[in-house]
Amino acid sequence: MSNSIPSNGEETKNKLDEYRKSIDNIDAAIINMLAERFKITQKVGIYKAKYNLKPADKKRESEQISRLRKLSKDAQLDPDFSEKFLDFIIEEVINHHKRFLNSE
Amino acid sequence: MSNSIPSNGEETKNKLDEYRKSIDNIDAAIINMLAERFKITQKVGIYKAKYNLKPADKKRESEQISRLRKLSKDAQLDPDFSEKFLDFIIEEVINHHKRFLNSE
Repeated sequence: MSNSIPSNGEETKNKLDEYRKSIDNIDAAIINMLAERFKITQKVGIYKAKYNLKPADKKRESEQISRLRKLSKDAQLDPDFSEKFLDFIIEEVINHHKRFLNSE
Repeated sequence: MSNSIPSNGEETKNKLDEYRKSIDNIDAAIINMLAERFKITQKVGIYKAKYNLKPADKKRESEQISRLRKLSKDAQLDPDFSEKFLDFIIEEVINHHKRFLNSE
């Protein structure tokens, strides 16, 4: 922490810009993936409603969690974070389903 | 909602399995993207600490939000969800930075 700003401030800015451009590219990819994911969960929701299948499936959810935790370890990502991430997404899927049922 | 389970129960299961396989593929892609994203934000954190730059950058964050909202609209994803998603990720980045500083 004893380092001061590099003499060439421009260089610092370029390095940060480089990182940020990569983050922006990754975010764009994730947003597009999420859009595809919600298209599919919407189809799942319609399908389950049509055939009176239960909206939630605890067995499936627990399989997803185990799988994501394993994938995370392989990718050196915190498995607890991935589980939180899946919860976050599933919560949104439930919101989507509720909105869909209300619009029926 | 008046439809009963299709006469061919196997068909229903196959259709659901097909959707779920796509969801699993997308989730694996997102997990790997997130792993890459955190690798870069970790570099940003180290870089900012090294040169005594402020960890948070409100201008950058507001640019990210506008950009993600626009991308979401193009991808037919709820822009409010994308903003929540970015908040969720940034919160984790802050947790990473704290853990990094504590381990120093």
